[in-house]
Amino acid sequence: MVNGEQVHRSPFTIHKIMELIDGKAVAAQIKSEIAEEVKQILAAGGKRPHLAAILVGHDGGSETYVASKVKTCDEIGFQSTLIRYEDDVTEETLLNRVNELNNDPGIDGFIVQLPLPKHISEQKVIETIDYRKDVDGFHPVNAGRMAIGLPCFVSATPAGIVELLRRYRIETSGKHCVVLGRSNIVGKPVASLLMQKSNPGDCTVTVCHSRTKDIRKYCLDADIIIAALGSPGFLKADMVKEGAVVIDVGTTRVPSAQTKSGFKLKGDVEFDEVAPKCSYITPVPGGVGPMTIVSLMKNTLLAAQKGLGG
Amino acid sequence: MVNGEQVHRSPFTIHKIMELIDGKAVAAQIKSEIAEEVKQILAAGGKRPHLAAILVGHDGGSETYVASKVKTCDEIGFQSTLIRYEDDVTEETLLNRVNELNNDPGIDGFIVQLPLPKHISEQKVIETIDYRKDVDGFHPVNAGRMAIGLPCFVSATPAGIVELLRRYRIETSGKHCVVLGRSNIVGKPVASLLMQKSNPGDCTVTVCHSRTKDIRKYCLDADIIIAALGSPGFLKADMVKEGAVVIDVGTTRVPSAQTKSGFKLKGDVEFDEVAPKCSYITPVPGGVGPMTIVSLMKNTLLAAQKGLGG
Repeated sequence: MVNGEQVHRSPFTIHKIMELIDGKAVAAQIKSEIAEEVKQILAAGGKRPHLAAILVGHDGGSETYVASKVKTCDEIGFQSTLIRYEDDVTEETLLNRVNELNNDPGIDGFIVQLPLPKHISEQKVIETIDYRKDVDGFHPVNAGRMAIGLPCFVSATPAGIVELLRRYRIETSGKHCVVLGRSNIVGKPVASLLMQKSNPGDCTVTVCHSRTKDIRKYCLDADIIIAALGSPGFLKADMVKEGAVVIDVGTTRVPSAQTKSGFKLKGDVEFDEVAPKCSYITPVPGGVGPMTIVSLMKNTLLAAQKGLGG
Repeated sequence: MVNGEQVHRSPFTIHKIMELIDGKAVAAQIKSEIAEEVKQILAAGGKRPHLAAILVGHDGGSETYVASKVKTCDEIGFQSTLIRYEDDVTEETLLNRVNELNNDPGIDGFIVQLPLPKHISEQKVIETIDYRKDVDGFHPVNAGRMAIGLPCFVSATPAGIVELLRRYRIETSGKHCVVLGRSNIVGKPVASLLMQKSNPGDCTVTVCHSRTKDIRKYCLDADIIIAALGSPGFLKADMVKEGAVVIDVGTTRVPSAQTKSGFKLKGDVEFDEVAPKCSYITPVPGGVGPMTIVSLMKNTLLAAQKGLGG
């Protein structure tokens, strides 16, 4: 996956040339690895991994994500089941369906695509999912097991970030990792993962957020910056030290005259000015994004193979 | 609880005189508050809160802790039940007893005193406890709910630290809090609590540990240092900036010629040299220590009153 060493030496600088982290290529590689594992499972007489997804309503983003998950299942040889409800489904109906999936031995793992309509408690739905089938990793048991360092389903985005660091063999031990943002689905879990006694891991981790005074100071000290604020172009060149690793989790739709759709995805990093200072950087799109679906698939494979129980 | 403002002004320095955080006094105050609540519950016809503790074997430290918990229950008007097993109890017997306590409506909360003998899986025991009765806050559901910011039982030491900050009205919002140590029972949860959108909370949090390079650099930048390494006298004066808040969680037994027992408790902080630089500091003993049992009692009261469900 990783390109050959690209080291530029001159009498004045010993500086590794910036390497673009190609999330799309890594994701494709992982998909082919999973497809290979599925073949081996089937050859050994095992059962095809089966992911179910519940989709409520017709939110454009949710439709796209779920369609993409179903398509990925096809590509790698998973069985998939899509269960649809209209916007006016009751919470009770949804919770009953969740319980049916919990008890269905044919289903290895399932997700309930968020967001849900306002009259349904997302937290209640998440907590009703059996944590052993919670391949999105949103259940408090999975969040808690992750914090403690126990086997668990790690949610897709943090898992994808760690996988990128692993595949590019980026040294993390003893490095100062600054996480921008404290959301439950990215900032907090990625901070938790990178401070664990593990590899990738063993980072000194600082979590910055809206209340942080002088974010620039922390960023300038960082060996690794994980930007997950959802604030387009927040991270500027003067906030990043030479040779830093920059992971951009932001994906905000901004207007664009250059695309047919009239918008484009913009990350939290002012890519053009930051990239030249970095040793590694993820682009948006094509960085962390493509990793999220494959992380979900890896969780589903884990659920199918042995689950969390060992 | 908090002494009046003590501000010393001179043409050269505007510096608050160091204030000792008196954990013993705060703990006594909280005990009297809980005792008052118990009286009100009983006056309203309610049930006396009931804490059970399982103690396996005769470890000296465990005997002391459990005796102290039982005594505190007496003082504040809780019912307590102590369940003892010898060292050779089977895991199965212990798990069955845990399940009985889970299902006993008379028991509001219970703890299994750690450590357990080697042939019993502590993690299995912890995960068998119903998280709604897990007043030690060690169950992954409680750890996960805390990470997410949901109502939960916070384990005693982190809860005690946050309570001290609250009672002394120490500003935390936007402050840089450096946590030394990443244990599951102190470092990680206290970091998690102090980064939450809450008060106390809203800190920029850095977690340092054995793999951190140049811990001194992070400490010197800290407004609040929480030392939980278990390394006696680790934090020296030259690692602390003027006016910092220092919370010492370390309690290591070190030999002493000055005590009858031949040892004394020493914290992670070189108190005599660090204290003069601080705005607030906890002593060892008498700082965080006395707060742990009252935090357990507060959790038990919460369990008795309404639990986590609402």
